Amino acid sequence: MRPRRLGEFGRIREFFAPLAGRGALGLTDDAALLDCPPGCQLVVTVDQAVEGVHYLAEDRPDLVAKKLLRRNLSDLAAMGATPHSYLVTTALPATRGDDWVERFAKGLAEDQHRYGIALLGGDSTSTPGPASLTLTAIGHVPTGREIRRSGAQPGDRIWVSGTIGDAFIGLKLLRGEVRRLPNEHRASLAARFRLPEPRTELGPRLAGIAHAMIDVSDGLLADLAHICKTSGVAATVELARVPLSPAARAAVMADPPLHPLLATGGDDYELVFAAAPEADGEITGLSQSLGLPIAKIGLVEAGAGVRLIGDLGREIALERAGWRHF
Amino acid sequence: MRPRRLGEFGRIREFFAPLAGRGALGLTDDAALLDCPPGCQLVVTVDQAVEGVHYLAEDRPDLVAKKLLRRNLSDLAAMGATPHSYLVTTALPATRGDDWVERFAKGLAEDQHRYGIALLGGDSTSTPGPASLTLTAIGHVPTGREIRRSGAQPGDRIWVSGTIGDAFIGLKLLRGEVRRLPNEHRASLAARFRLPEPRTELGPRLAGIAHAMIDVSDGLLADLAHICKTSGVAATVELARVPLSPAARAAVMADPPLHPLLATGGDDYELVFAAAPEADGEITGLSQSLGLPIAKIGLVEAGAGVRLIGDLGREIALERAGWRHF
Repeated sequence: MRPRRLGEFGRIREFFAPLAGRGALGLTDDAALLDCPPGCQLVVTVDQAVEGVHYLAEDRPDLVAKKLLRRNLSDLAAMGATPHSYLVTTALPATRGDDWVERFAKGLAEDQHRYGIALLGGDSTSTPGPASLTLTAIGHVPTGREIRRSGAQPGDRIWVSGTIGDAFIGLKLLRGEVRRLPNEHRASLAARFRLPEPRTELGPRLAGIAHAMIDVSDGLLADLAHICKTSGVAATVELARVPLSPAARAAVMADPPLHPLLATGGDDYELVFAAAPEADGEITGLSQSLGLPIAKIGLVEAGAGVRLIGDLGREIALERAGWRHF
Repeated sequence: MRPRRLGEFGRIREFFAPLAGRGALGLTDDAALLDCPPGCQLVVTVDQAVEGVHYLAEDRPDLVAKKLLRRNLSDLAAMGATPHSYLVTTALPATRGDDWVERFAKGLAEDQHRYGIALLGGDSTSTPGPASLTLTAIGHVPTGREIRRSGAQPGDRIWVSGTIGDAFIGLKLLRGEVRRLPNEHRASLAARFRLPEPRTELGPRLAGIAHAMIDVSDGLLADLAHICKTSGVAATVELARVPLSPAARAAVMADPPLHPLLATGGDDYELVFAAAPEADGEITGLSQSLGLPIAKIGLVEAGAGVRLIGDLGREIALERAGWRHF
């Protein structure tokens, strides 16, 4: 497609201004105004997506936008916060056409509608390198009701929402690294990698229930290790209890050594949290009312570190618990 | 210098965690908590710095950090907001050593102290391209007292703080494009390009005085044009009244065609604003109490567009009013 030439201000006017919420002042001012609901604190987080690192140049721009947004919404959910608005920056090669930007903005528009949020501001520039995108998301939480990583206590049960490992297998599929998997399962796994579903409804509902929470972006065990470190506790996870989708189950059947790796793959964007045993019934009820599986996968103990337990109670040694950039 | 190998989390712990303010939760959580002072609204803005576009790979990392931060503080000032906190993202080549990051963080630390702000959060990743940095700044303004671009009225006077054109000449100097300038003036002009001084004290003091305001980042005339467009008015600026530093004056003496270009150069980070003629005394008083020159440079009129007037009232035609990225 031939790049159109709207220019920097034209792109803002055509593609981004229609996304602007109250306080964004039509994206024509130096900064945006933001109210905090009475009795609430704001919650702020920021994430990046770099072409060639977080996504590929040929990926659909609307999905790139949605994934970046949803990764941030997942961070808000992990604090128990309700999403409100966001700012987005784009550093794009000068050769990148308006069409790409239009489709990127369309992805944001669709997810704004889905999650009830609006654009507050942003910045666009050119770059001699690969595209580089950031998104700052803002939410709110009733004052004192935020869920931190630091509150896990020995005796707490460890729970995780949804299913684990789909995105990890999905990425392997997209890379052509999975051969023995029935076709019927391929699409759902790839979709799970391309487009996570942040648990924006569950997160705020866990205020007063979860002692500590994090979203699974680096990998179930790596993220649980963050909770353990910040809380000064240890955790044990039973691999057999880690919830798998039918597709992931089929992949494990075809390639058993894959099983423990699913607990170290990233991009799940599920919520993992610690809660007192007395909360079991409440959590089960919440799972039912949201129609979202929440599985009890382990136990918080005194000590440090995360252990993964396999068949017959044997500990599974893992080379690396999660992805790091450096 | 040999790159150290702290890793992603090590860099956060060593260099960025010491900058974390209240609400940042030691940078160990998914998101940060943010209170809004009673009776205030929050003001949010974001800007990028891309290596090879906004700065050069060999530039001092502490100055890169400060300039990025100050560009954002300038945006807050232009809304009449007082700065409070910020989030920063870095996408860095994998070869970039810890030393660079340490010096980058040191620049932030110094400016945090200078401006009374603190780090709330961020994100770090690797990139196969040039370094790409973003900074989201958050401030606050008494509710209803923000200064927008849209309030300029015919009859208003146009004012600008400080001096104009220094950064423009400074950049030309650094590129070796200025030959006939006495050495005594070179350092101050280059410094002005490398490190702006956002008018964080003046901005909030203009609440209730300025009808419309913007900071000069794209160029005096281009930014004034934003005010005119958003306010639905025209503006006339007298070149002879545009305030120049002694160094800029010397550069214009040596190269007279440079003079009108100073009103189109960017990176001044001064505040340009429109105010009723009745406010003249108040503005002059403010200028004296802050020890900061504020010059009356023109007039708001009915109509559209910005005109630059030279000697004998002749309009000066300019090819381009300011820099655009696309």
